[in-house]
Amino acid sequence: MKKPIFYHAGCSVCVSAEHDIVELVGKDKLEIVNISEHRNRIEEAEKAGVKSVPAMVTATGNVLHINHGASMAEVKA
Amino acid sequence: MKKPIFYHAGCSVCVSAEHDIVELVGKDKLEIVNISEHRNRIEEAEKAGVKSVPAMVTATGNVLHINHGASMAEVKA
Repeated sequence: MKKPIFYHAGCSVCVSAEHDIVELVGKDKLEIVNISEHRNRIEEAEKAGVKSVPAMVTATGNVLHINHGASMAEVKA
Repeated sequence: MKKPIFYHAGCSVCVSAEHDIVELVGKDKLEIVNISEHRNRIEEAEKAGVKSVPAMVTATGNVLHINHGASMAEVKA
């Protein structure tokens, strides 16, 4: 099965959510992508339906937007 | 350790998020509370910092607001 992907942008809201999610789901069961550092993955995240970060794309392709750190427009700015 | 609590209100956004979260975290590691049905738990959720549902209160007391189904005001209405 595909791993869920947790996208974040390094902001404080993101880092806090990342910590909680890793705690809940387990680090080895997740792929964690900082799209501020890996900007080539912004397009992939948007195609998956990510509107803001932090967000998790589940193995089945659903997008869970968690709290609200930054919109994709802000990440790209 | 305290179990994380997933609060929802039975709305379609909630049910979809619930399914994903149970899949990710495991049903036995979560308490799931439908605050539309168990209205006596609304106060507890608000005290924990829940502003909208679905939301998860982690074992350490952090609140993860997931997507946005309904505000607490809407749940109480």
